[in-house]
Amino acid sequence: MKADSLSPSDSFSHLDDAGRARMVRVTGKADQNRRAVAEGFLQLAPETVEKLRRQALPKGDVLTVAQVAGILGAKKTAELIPLCHLLPLHHVEVGLTPERDRIRIVAAAETVGKTGVEMEALTAVVVAALTLYDMCKAVDKGMSIEGVRLLKKEKESVGERTAS
Amino acid sequence: MKADSLSPSDSFSHLDDAGRARMVRVTGKADQNRRAVAEGFLQLAPETVEKLRRQALPKGDVLTVAQVAGILGAKKTAELIPLCHLLPLHHVEVGLTPERDRIRIVAAAETVGKTGVEMEALTAVVVAALTLYDMCKAVDKGMSIEGVRLLKKEKESVGERTAS
Amino acid sequence: MKADSLSPSDSFSHLDDAGRARMVRVTGKADQNRRAVAEGFLQLAPETVEKLRRQALPKGDVLTVAQVAGILGAKKTAELIPLCHLLPLHHVEVGLTPERDRIRIVAAAETVGKTGVEMEALTAVVVAALTLYDMCKAVDKGMSIEGVRLLKKEKESVGERTAS
Amino acid sequence: MKADSLSPSDSFSHLDDAGRARMVRVTGKADQNRRAVAEGFLQLAPETVEKLRRQALPKGDVLTVAQVAGILGAKKTAELIPLCHLLPLHHVEVGLTPERDRIRIVAAAETVGKTGVEMEALTAVVVAALTLYDMCKAVDKGMSIEGVRLLKKEKESVGERTAS
Amino acid sequence: MKADSLSPSDSFSHLDDAGRARMVRVTGKADQNRRAVAEGFLQLAPETVEKLRRQALPKGDVLTVAQVAGILGAKKTAELIPLCHLLPLHHVEVGLTPERDRIRIVAAAETVGKTGVEMEALTAVVVAALTLYDMCKAVDKGMSIEGVRLLKKEKESVGERTAS
Amino acid sequence: MKADSLSPSDSFSHLDDAGRARMVRVTGKADQNRRAVAEGFLQLAPETVEKLRRQALPKGDVLTVAQVAGILGAKKTAELIPLCHLLPLHHVEVGLTPERDRIRIVAAAETVGKTGVEMEALTAVVVAALTLYDMCKAVDKGMSIEGVRLLKKEKESVGERTAS
Repeated sequence: MKADSLSPSDSFSHLDDAGRARMVRVTGKADQNRRAVAEGFLQLAPETVEKLRRQALPKGDVLTVAQVAGILGAKKTAELIPLCHLLPLHHVEVGLTPERDRIRIVAAAETVGKTGVEMEALTAVVVAALTLYDMCKAVDKGMSIEGVRLLKKEKESVGERTAS
Repeated sequence: MKADSLSPSDSFSHLDDAGRARMVRVTGKADQNRRAVAEGFLQLAPETVEKLRRQALPKGDVLTVAQVAGILGAKKTAELIPLCHLLPLHHVEVGLTPERDRIRIVAAAETVGKTGVEMEALTAVVVAALTLYDMCKAVDKGMSIEGVRLLKKEKESVGERTAS
Repeated sequence: MKADSLSPSDSFSHLDDAGRARMVRVTGKADQNRRAVAEGFLQLAPETVEKLRRQALPKGDVLTVAQVAGILGAKKTAELIPLCHLLPLHHVEVGLTPERDRIRIVAAAETVGKTGVEMEALTAVVVAALTLYDMCKAVDKGMSIEGVRLLKKEKESVGERTAS
Repeated sequence: MKADSLSPSDSFSHLDDAGRARMVRVTGKADQNRRAVAEGFLQLAPETVEKLRRQALPKGDVLTVAQVAGILGAKKTAELIPLCHLLPLHHVEVGLTPERDRIRIVAAAETVGKTGVEMEALTAVVVAALTLYDMCKAVDKGMSIEGVRLLKKEKESVGERTAS
Repeated sequence: MKADSLSPSDSFSHLDDAGRARMVRVTGKADQNRRAVAEGFLQLAPETVEKLRRQALPKGDVLTVAQVAGILGAKKTAELIPLCHLLPLHHVEVGLTPERDRIRIVAAAETVGKTGVEMEALTAVVVAALTLYDMCKAVDKGMSIEGVRLLKKEKESVGERTAS
Repeated sequence: MKADSLSPSDSFSHLDDAGRARMVRVTGKADQNRRAVAEGFLQLAPETVEKLRRQALPKGDVLTVAQVAGILGAKKTAELIPLCHLLPLHHVEVGLTPERDRIRIVAAAETVGKTGVEMEALTAVVVAALTLYDMCKAVDKGMSIEGVRLLKKEKESVGERTAS
């Protein structure tokens, strides 16, 4: 896949000439394979991570609940973000890795469509982060969500074979 | 209102003794006035903030779209976060303030219920942030969501008059 | 039940002093029995009504589908209307009456809550009307939805026995 | 684009031979560019329009909230109308124009699909109208929704260049 | 149409090599016509069926409500089942047949897509069954849902003419 | 808690005198603690259960995904079942136990409200069953959902201390 253009455009595509919000017209755009990867972090106290490792991670439920929430969240993107197009997703994956004082969340989304899936990957990350937050909030009062950003965004023609 | 206890509990309330996920039983808890305030930031290039000020903020749509998305997002909290209880909200407010290289988002939520509304306030913040991200992504390729955290969480008996 | 005050207030309660949208705070308001009735019309050609009477009404499905859609729509009100509070409904009823060149739709909604249910009754009416439109659109190209308005709005204290 | 056939069919496509409701089979139909435009009106007192102009329109929020609600509503069409097919929309636009004693709402929707998008355009109109109603109901007790109808419905082959 | 392969695969496609849940990647798969038929039964007392025949079936509402719920349920499949792909359905049909001591429910679903629609057909069946249960539960305390299974699953190339 | 009355009523409460469907009025009913427990089974080949035990159960994800789906499903009950009241749930628990040739699913739901939560418990069971089915369908072509029924339904006055 080719990386999407990194040179930003000059204007806000969601605003018409009068500055009024709209859902961007993508009717004329070609259907392409689209892929995006996003990451984010739930910052927590090292003792909370420790406690998770002892009490919660052996059974695995905490991370799986967050992962399922992230996948379902990705499918709700167009419902949550008003000007976002509905894109039926062909693949979603959410991975969670506990580090010393945070849990790293990485989400990948794919579709064949007329517009990219970065909002879907980002939504999966934040919904997984909120779900973790919810499950740890009785134990840790000082958590925050940090560094939610796009890692990669790719597209390729549907027939194209050469992936980047 | 009194601030909620800040001393963390010792265990993950969403896990039963076998470490299995569940929605916590709140049946016995009293209905109380509940309030929570959360904040977060969409980090963007100073030029993007500048461009927003010139092209988008006069008309106001960009911030209003994000604000509406945040309010609707708060109402979807229990649908997005698997172990969260549905709390019919009695008030939601989302404020957005452009700063030099970021937009600050503050959300407040209120209800009368058996459990707190911090997840609703946090969800409003992240959905507003994602919506801003979506509207600015054609212009700025390096944004991130940062510092999403709870600012305040209060409860008081339904009849109680003394607010903190 | 007493009819709700008919003297309009002087300002838009959904706007704060700065003119910014918000979900109105109802935290301090008393829980009351709330009831609202709304009506509306799907205008269609007399021949379409005639055809409905012959082909569709005997079996009854067309009206029942619209009625079910209206009831489900009432339950989605707070999801559709951004600044509307979620009110768990205690009763919803949707009636459809074919007249010469239109179908009359009447919806009633009830709850015990801090704010009225007129938006729920109105939403039931328009969703039922859209559903009828959808089912008749292959047959009639000139339909319109007309006269959607509130017929009655009442509230009474929860213990109160005297209904109006 | 060509205007869709205006000659109505002879039977209700949503009913099978036994008069039972179903979602019409569109499997064999070609994917085409589809576009629809609908309009409707929220009727209100001239003083309410005046008050809106003075207090609410300068900031713009009232119209933007209704516009966002309309766009999100269009994306919920298949969830609201039981026999409607889900069509991922490629463009939605909602415009609101205050007139002397009413607000005119126009919505356009587009997709590439096997069936038309008039229900999406109509749904955007009524959800925007309900949202305006909700925001004005403290000020005006006599509003109604009127004249919700289809203005235009077009389709063209996906490759076709000649638009009407 | 050809029946889908009946020889089961050797591994759980929804688990990656580490046993972690994911939404299966279907990006590379061809778009095909997909069809599935499922059935299920609501078991009830013969007297309840009798009572339904006398009081409820003449008007038809009970069966129609369940049928509409099943159709809407099919459209919600990807929202209910976490690892399921969203498939815009091209046809859904739900039939209900009262027998001596049960009501038989059959649902068919169709799409053109990269993956099958059996989950949509099965979801339609169970949601219709739950809806019937809900409407009969005041009358019959011993109902159960039984025998929910896939009857048929087919696919064919989009151009292919020979149906099985 | 006292078991709810087991003597069935004589008529279908969801039908009015004309046999037309409606959402039953519960406005006058007292708020009570409500609890319901339901069970159901996904029937599969003994080899599939064996394979699950070896490949999927150690990590635990398959059962946790179904459990989360069931909990989220319970919260969607009023959206899925047209005439069901929305009940904000105070507790939901879903347990899954693999047996020789089936997986047993038990769900419990609780609320304080005007009507029972058996539909919520039953919905949790069937959504969990569908989710398991989805994850096992590549491996086993002969599964069915069986024996979905209510095990227990209780209510007690909100202040009442004696549980049954």
